Amino acid sequence: MSPTLSRADANTLSLRHLYAPIADELRQVEDLLRSQMRSQHAYVDELVRYGCLLGGKRLRPALVLLAGRAVGHIAPQHVPLAAVIEMVHTASLIHDDVLDDADIRRHLATVNSRWDNKTSVLLGDFLFTHAFCLASSVGSVWACRELSSATNTVCEGELRQKGTRGEYGLSEADYLDIIAAKTAALYACSCSIGAHFGGASESWTERFALFGRDLGIAFQIVDDVLDLAGDEQTVGKSLGTDLAQHKLTLPLIHVLGSADPADRQRVLAILQRQGNHRQQALVPYFQRYDAFAYAYDVARRYTQQAAQRLDGLPPSAACERLQELTEFVITRSV
Amino acid sequence: MSPTLSRADANTLSLRHLYAPIADELRQVEDLLRSQMRSQHAYVDELVRYGCLLGGKRLRPALVLLAGRAVGHIAPQHVPLAAVIEMVHTASLIHDDVLDDADIRRHLATVNSRWDNKTSVLLGDFLFTHAFCLASSVGSVWACRELSSATNTVCEGELRQKGTRGEYGLSEADYLDIIAAKTAALYACSCSIGAHFGGASESWTERFALFGRDLGIAFQIVDDVLDLAGDEQTVGKSLGTDLAQHKLTLPLIHVLGSADPADRQRVLAILQRQGNHRQQALVPYFQRYDAFAYAYDVARRYTQQAAQRLDGLPPSAACERLQELTEFVITRSV
Repeated sequence: MSPTLSRADANTLSLRHLYAPIADELRQVEDLLRSQMRSQHAYVDELVRYGCLLGGKRLRPALVLLAGRAVGHIAPQHVPLAAVIEMVHTASLIHDDVLDDADIRRHLATVNSRWDNKTSVLLGDFLFTHAFCLASSVGSVWACRELSSATNTVCEGELRQKGTRGEYGLSEADYLDIIAAKTAALYACSCSIGAHFGGASESWTERFALFGRDLGIAFQIVDDVLDLAGDEQTVGKSLGTDLAQHKLTLPLIHVLGSADPADRQRVLAILQRQGNHRQQALVPYFQRYDAFAYAYDVARRYTQQAAQRLDGLPPSAACERLQELTEFVITRSV
Repeated sequence: MSPTLSRADANTLSLRHLYAPIADELRQVEDLLRSQMRSQHAYVDELVRYGCLLGGKRLRPALVLLAGRAVGHIAPQHVPLAAVIEMVHTASLIHDDVLDDADIRRHLATVNSRWDNKTSVLLGDFLFTHAFCLASSVGSVWACRELSSATNTVCEGELRQKGTRGEYGLSEADYLDIIAAKTAALYACSCSIGAHFGGASESWTERFALFGRDLGIAFQIVDDVLDLAGDEQTVGKSLGTDLAQHKLTLPLIHVLGSADPADRQRVLAILQRQGNHRQQALVPYFQRYDAFAYAYDVARRYTQQAAQRLDGLPPSAACERLQELTEFVITRSV
């Protein structure tokens, strides 16, 4: 690898490798997204096209396609449903950025910062409903049910997280339960839809759902660590929003749970402070209690469990890439 | 009628009469809404149950049921799909109140004023996705497609309206086109779903969709007049939000289009003013150009057209109530 490559480039290269078995279909998803995210009304069109740019790694559509290929074949339903899931994800990002008062997403101004919160609300709604429209055009009630149920679980998870803001006694189990809903449900749905339309049995479809769930939980744990410790330039989105919004994530839950009483009081005092200096003030405590390493250990337990879920699948490039994806989720810096 | 009855009571009585042929089924819709709008998580449960109270006249579910009964029968799909449409409507009201900075809805504090805008965003999303979940449980891809397509049209209409705020040259045709999307699409969908599952032919289903569309346009014109001229106590929601948000509605479009140049300049000058005194200052112009009467005339053209759409239906109580509903939409004060 050239020494001038940034970590972001390394990640991109790595994604190219991971997505190789489904590169053509992923391009079709991209084309479909670009053609679907349009409107005949100029103002709406500008917004929707901008929204399309805010998606990132296209991990969820890639999972739909890799799961299909790993169990059998890519069916006509895969590409539109992969696009649907990316659209749902984009809608939820646009609403998340309102919740987090975030300014930057994928190196671009968020919709709320470039326009305003009200525009974000409507654009998110437009994308959610457009996604369900496209889903129903596929003609499978099963897919409509899976997608709407997963999306509803995501929204419930978001509401639960909102309800626990500032609750510094939140347990690790509750945190994991919330991220299983708000993040992992859509990963699970991507994998089960991919497997189902690839021709998997019901029991393999269920195993793929669990693979996606484990992967999604690990992904979110790492996302939360990056929010505390990542580099905004590399990650390409506003960071530090969890602390700003009094959202508890695993490193902090670990510190609060394992610190001695005096340190715990100091950490709680820092969390009550106004302003943006909390993050800096917490660094010594994250270090003293190995908080990031702890979070990565938990995430790794989930990715190892995810990888085991696929034991028994016939060997294929797609299956190998799914196994490697579990590693990518942990090592990524974007 | 007792002389002590307020106009709101008169409206309520009138609704009881209009809903008589489907009173039992409407109660089932209400029960289903109450049982569906729950969560096992206390914080989410409180919000969702509160959201359930914000709906109002249940006009859309009533249309689903009356359309079914008018063409034939009430099928098992009618009650859940009527609940779905009310849920979609409630979700969009909760997001609307964020857009309009509204404080009061159905005589209650709005979600954004009792909690905050962020909670409203998430609760609306939860209800939208829950509605699609319930819709897919009915097992009809056709229904999923109708509902998601109508809801997407609603969102596009809302975005278009947001894009035209402060555009004082907006034409009457563009205004009608926008309200046909943001309001009438869900009315049309209610009627076509009701007719379809009642056993109507494709052409009758289409006629019911047009009936709903006409009714919805008239409903919104009157809603916009009430926003300018209604009594907040009677209507039970925040009024004056259209002027505050620089949203053009029919009375104002009519004044701007028919006033002499000097009056037009004065009206435009009032609209540019800061603060909440615009409404009062505009009253003489609304009067001079008969703006409210003009708007009611346009609304009446739509309700008359709506009534004609049903010509040829076999006579029934449901059909009569649908005809009377076109009158209610014009004469209502809530």
